[in-house]
Amino acid sequence: MTPLALRVDPGAEPAPVCRLDSPPLSVVARPPEWVAPGLTRKMAAFLATRPATPCLVVDLDVVEANYHALHAALPEAEVYYAVKANPAPPLVARLVGLGARFDTASLPEIDLCLALGADPAHLSFGNTIKKARDIAAAYERGLRLFAFDAEEELRKIAEHAPGSRVFCRILTDNAGAEWPLSRKFGCSPVMARDLMRRAADLGLEPVGLSFHVGSQQTDPSQWDHALALVADLFRGLRADGLEPSLVNLGGGLPTRYGRPVPDVDVYGAGIRAAVARLFEGPAPRLIVEPGRGLVGNAGVLESEVVLVSRKDESEARRWVYLDAGRFNGLAETEGEAIRYPLATDRDGDGTGLGPVVLAGPTCDSVDVLYDRADVRLPLSLRAGDRLRLMSTGAYTTTYASVGFNGFAPLAAHYV
Amino acid sequence: MTPLALRVDPGAEPAPVCRLDSPPLSVVARPPEWVAPGLTRKMAAFLATRPATPCLVVDLDVVEANYHALHAALPEAEVYYAVKANPAPPLVARLVGLGARFDTASLPEIDLCLALGADPAHLSFGNTIKKARDIAAAYERGLRLFAFDAEEELRKIAEHAPGSRVFCRILTDNAGAEWPLSRKFGCSPVMARDLMRRAADLGLEPVGLSFHVGSQQTDPSQWDHALALVADLFRGLRADGLEPSLVNLGGGLPTRYGRPVPDVDVYGAGIRAAVARLFEGPAPRLIVEPGRGLVGNAGVLESEVVLVSRKDESEARRWVYLDAGRFNGLAETEGEAIRYPLATDRDGDGTGLGPVVLAGPTCDSVDVLYDRADVRLPLSLRAGDRLRLMSTGAYTTTYASVGFNGFAPLAAHYV
Repeated sequence: MTPLALRVDPGAEPAPVCRLDSPPLSVVARPPEWVAPGLTRKMAAFLATRPATPCLVVDLDVVEANYHALHAALPEAEVYYAVKANPAPPLVARLVGLGARFDTASLPEIDLCLALGADPAHLSFGNTIKKARDIAAAYERGLRLFAFDAEEELRKIAEHAPGSRVFCRILTDNAGAEWPLSRKFGCSPVMARDLMRRAADLGLEPVGLSFHVGSQQTDPSQWDHALALVADLFRGLRADGLEPSLVNLGGGLPTRYGRPVPDVDVYGAGIRAAVARLFEGPAPRLIVEPGRGLVGNAGVLESEVVLVSRKDESEARRWVYLDAGRFNGLAETEGEAIRYPLATDRDGDGTGLGPVVLAGPTCDSVDVLYDRADVRLPLSLRAGDRLRLMSTGAYTTTYASVGFNGFAPLAAHYV
Repeated sequence: MTPLALRVDPGAEPAPVCRLDSPPLSVVARPPEWVAPGLTRKMAAFLATRPATPCLVVDLDVVEANYHALHAALPEAEVYYAVKANPAPPLVARLVGLGARFDTASLPEIDLCLALGADPAHLSFGNTIKKARDIAAAYERGLRLFAFDAEEELRKIAEHAPGSRVFCRILTDNAGAEWPLSRKFGCSPVMARDLMRRAADLGLEPVGLSFHVGSQQTDPSQWDHALALVADLFRGLRADGLEPSLVNLGGGLPTRYGRPVPDVDVYGAGIRAAVARLFEGPAPRLIVEPGRGLVGNAGVLESEVVLVSRKDESEARRWVYLDAGRFNGLAETEGEAIRYPLATDRDGDGTGLGPVVLAGPTCDSVDVLYDRADVRLPLSLRAGDRLRLMSTGAYTTTYASVGFNGFAPLAAHYV
């Protein structure tokens, strides 16, 4: 990957405002107003109160606007929010109010959604790795939609959630994803066909198939490849006498970090065209499971510079240590995979920029955020200054450790 | 790194029992009794109660025995326990009772030690990255020993902890370490010499130097190289009119995972010989900061198998998913760096062993523990079985996330 300048130039083009022209469910009460790249007026107003750092500030209006934009781009699909991306109660409650559905990974996530008013019929237990007792508890709570990718899992579901609807996750490759997935989830299409028949034999309702093109997927055509595979399997399953009807498109919709990404409309148009072209007979029911795509650009993480140093007087590159690092919010900088845009108090102060390594506050040497990336920050930067990481609404609070090195988990404010 | 069989063969040599022949401070009240590799009688008795999984069980007698063994191996050194390795109050309290000192990374760690009865004069604020207000708070609590590696940090210490003793961390390479450190900590020896003079100018007491040879350091000669660098710097500092007296040997002492590691006596003898050979004049005061070396082999992590699957019928290698993964305890499997020995309920049941990929329970594809490592587990293994990871007393509970995917942080029991 080519090194990128991460820093947001205040003069650069503004982040794209989400399209709001055809909200399908309700009118957006408070459309977000962007005052700088990655920063809404509400985020800026909250940060102006100088909250203790590190902290995340999430503008729920951005989440709502993203939700409506996705609905407009892909009106046929039911939107199941991937709760793991950010399970904050105010955020989940807002989505419940909008009529969203929820893709859940565990019983605690299920209970969270139900406690906030979600209908159990609108929840999917989307983790392919579930304890038998958790399947039973989910069934007891009214869930009837379960993911699987293995025979042992099917048997657990058949025993503890009899008659439920199940979908099989298939393996696809993840070219184009900035946070690609391993082979951990899914099975081969050949095995999926066998397992779907097996599901029917076990008294379950094998409703369809799912896949995942990889998180922060920047290539919309990746859904095409996966959909072709699914359409082919649908034909095979129909030949077997089954009636598959559900295509779960998974997650992977990107958020805007440093580089522009295609608009959600581009993804929607591509997926709709591929479905129309590839599937015979009645149009399949579509599910989409956005996490990052709904909440990523809704958050800004405010941190404090703790130390600026050099390893030797002869080195031009400085080390900038923040009070936020890989163990209290910025886990997705592992391997420098996700590159958040940055802004500081001193941007544009005329001192110029110089190269830095950006690191977290712990005594752990893997707690380095960006080393290979060509990050440049003001030469005037010093301890006590504030540094903001943009588009940090997803996968930050939840990855935070319980208190590694004694540092508290990431605080968060929902405005 | 050559792939290793991780599984503990019940017929293999037992893990080395810590030497207890010359405890310097007190008699060990309850020497640990090993009933299997990595498992003491007390751990086994607790696990026999079938505690909810996943959980860590730590035998504090092992910690105590390790502490005495280190003292016996390196009687000249003051032992500062690196609290970050495992800050559990019962564990820290046991070490306070033994007369241990404490290397702390943050104000919460300092407050924890003080609340458990540690003397502030026995605490070092060992993190080189400290907020000014945390330095002030530590000074107010009575701490007078601070680490630094940069001029800006020195200025903060001089202002907020006037007159304190300071030691400068120098950069060394980490050959031989299984968890090597980056260049995040320390400065060049040339800069260290300048900064030590600067410390004196600022009214601080520049007492010495520190280094770190990398965590889980399996090559005892690595301390030699670093000590030679420090001895050379001592000569330079004396020529500058300073009187350095403290050598902080850092951490890095290994614990026993799959492969044998040299006994702590070997490290002690090597360090003592190097110090005697390299340092002129009065013997320096020595500090050692063990974390993993004191608590690693004191813990066992009990997990439950959630799913055993194949990705295709043609694949021999199974996927085994546990209820413990990278986000609820096993963070140090990142890059398959730390390879914990494994044991299951079904070991030796006659079904034979087969290759597996071992993974955690979350919907995150990086939550894979061992893929390249040639892990082999019983062919009879299935969901509901228990699997134990040995030598997991260090860096497990604290790295756990607050609840990624809704999974609770790692529970722990101290026996």
